[in-house]
Amino acid sequence: MAKLENDTLIRALLRQPTRYTPVWLMRQAGRYLPEYNATRARAGDFLALCKTPAAATEVTLQPLERFPLDAAILFSDILTIPDAMGLGLSFVEGEGPRFARPVRDEAAIARLAPPRPEAELRYVVDAVREIRRALASRVPLIGFAGSPFTLACYMIEGGASADFALVKKMLYQRPDLLHRVLDVNARAVADYLNAQIEAGAQAVMLFDTWGGTLAHAAYVEFSLAYIRRVIASLAREAGGERVPSIVFTKGGGPWLEQIATSGCDAIGVDWTVSLGAARARVGGRVALQGNLDPLVLLTDPDTVQREAERTLADFGDATGHVFNLGHGIVPSTPPGNVKALVQAVHAASRRDH
Amino acid sequence: MAKLENDTLIRALLRQPTRYTPVWLMRQAGRYLPEYNATRARAGDFLALCKTPAAATEVTLQPLERFPLDAAILFSDILTIPDAMGLGLSFVEGEGPRFARPVRDEAAIARLAPPRPEAELRYVVDAVREIRRALASRVPLIGFAGSPFTLACYMIEGGASADFALVKKMLYQRPDLLHRVLDVNARAVADYLNAQIEAGAQAVMLFDTWGGTLAHAAYVEFSLAYIRRVIASLAREAGGERVPSIVFTKGGGPWLEQIATSGCDAIGVDWTVSLGAARARVGGRVALQGNLDPLVLLTDPDTVQREAERTLADFGDATGHVFNLGHGIVPSTPPGNVKALVQAVHAASRRDH
Repeated sequence: MAKLENDTLIRALLRQPTRYTPVWLMRQAGRYLPEYNATRARAGDFLALCKTPAAATEVTLQPLERFPLDAAILFSDILTIPDAMGLGLSFVEGEGPRFARPVRDEAAIARLAPPRPEAELRYVVDAVREIRRALASRVPLIGFAGSPFTLACYMIEGGASADFALVKKMLYQRPDLLHRVLDVNARAVADYLNAQIEAGAQAVMLFDTWGGTLAHAAYVEFSLAYIRRVIASLAREAGGERVPSIVFTKGGGPWLEQIATSGCDAIGVDWTVSLGAARARVGGRVALQGNLDPLVLLTDPDTVQREAERTLADFGDATGHVFNLGHGIVPSTPPGNVKALVQAVHAASRRDH
Repeated sequence: MAKLENDTLIRALLRQPTRYTPVWLMRQAGRYLPEYNATRARAGDFLALCKTPAAATEVTLQPLERFPLDAAILFSDILTIPDAMGLGLSFVEGEGPRFARPVRDEAAIARLAPPRPEAELRYVVDAVREIRRALASRVPLIGFAGSPFTLACYMIEGGASADFALVKKMLYQRPDLLHRVLDVNARAVADYLNAQIEAGAQAVMLFDTWGGTLAHAAYVEFSLAYIRRVIASLAREAGGERVPSIVFTKGGGPWLEQIATSGCDAIGVDWTVSLGAARARVGGRVALQGNLDPLVLLTDPDTVQREAERTLADFGDATGHVFNLGHGIVPSTPPGNVKALVQAVHAASRRDH
């Protein structure tokens, strides 16, 4: 494959000097874009969009046509893995994901096995290949997966949950069963990310959406330990280039020091944490990705610019910052504010680099 | 009034030596108790229960009849203040609180004024007096209020919210308006807590349920600054006894050092933070209250005992710990597990003190 025209993201993740701070946005391909909604309507529904490589490629590239973002991220869902395990995923409009066959007893857990990326998850691997072709080396493509614990939450609860009562009961009463689920998930996630890397993903990110609901000791034992295991199993290079890894635990502020020892190259941080304070805590071990409050994007271009500049100033002028939101773009975001954000990050950080 | 028979809670909040670690539980009077549900059904609904001092007294004392808890907490709701401001509070079954007249524009904000505790909030002050008489100095009574920012969230959104989009838009675009709401709320909360103290509350707690949704700099400016102002306005003594204050920001782990400088005597911490690490961060400046995951109470007495002992061990054997959950008891909690928790905390901490 050709050299990347814009490798700013990769360099920042590896804490190498860059001319400006790279920026991409969680859920940059999503419902705030009318062209996304049009493609999704044509595909039928969200899951059909994920499972059709041509449609997934189309929506992955849509935000790059509008904004000079420094990365593309695979359009997919973290629940493709449990769906491929046979749990029967569907999305109920306005209610989120639902599994027809949640995993709640010893027998169901014993039956779990990692899916084969080139078989049950072939549509994702194909999408990665097709997106790489379409990107033509303009910017890097980020692959991703849910963390083993976050996948377990959905697999056990059967969907989203306000308090994860079933998962936590298992965690406290039958930790052996939860560890078995997590062991399968860790192998599945590692296989899946390695298949994405082999197909062309140039960086990978682990989304630990629900690790932040755990008590501190439980986080280390049930989420971070398996993230560590996944990272240890990842291909570190592809085609002679390093493939950096990013770990994002929403609400993971209390554990930045521990996450920094997971083997990852960068930590995603949400907006509750000061980037300056986070840098001091993790030292020079990892890069940081984040962390503007996504609700800032509901305001206006001037406010967006001011808050973007505050976020950059909070990090300071060293290397190792990837600008992002602290969580996904919300659907009611005006696209013009996203444009203002990308411009502000590039302009202000060019002045400082 | 007579001397307290059991002043363990007060001593622990003031970091004085105690014979064991005191324990009380957020929402200890609540739906997990059949006798609570019976009283609530007789009262009509939740709001009627709050507004009837005799009924509020009855449910406040119910958990103390079952368990040897070291404190009672006023049965009420954090939204009594905005209700008394004329916003029209109701509770929709299964949906939570709703305000008929949310505060969303400059004119509505200009009309806001702190309610008079002995007038519009007389029912709360009367309940405090009646509970103190019924308690007969067995254990201390904790009074409470919502934090100025948390009240503003409900007042502006009109109810609970997944992302507080309206509050955050105001915060980023019209901070002057939000500051005006917070100024009124801070005066209202201080007046309200002082009236509770005058009526007999022996400690007070500020519940900052939503401060944890803010970006770090916004938390300091829009939530903590007003908590600080409330605490500075509180009566520090009543009847010759110190009245300790507790600040609980759910998800406030990133800001413990800053909260410790707010003037409070104790910080409530949720389960995401290690108590041992939290102690190291706040030094000897404040006591800590917490922090068992409330979901542990869905398991069984042996598991509850083990996790309670882990929490005590995490804090260590110094003074200044009030055992509590990291958030309220969930309604499906078996009362037998609460009994096991209180016993375990008392037994294990007596061994260590």
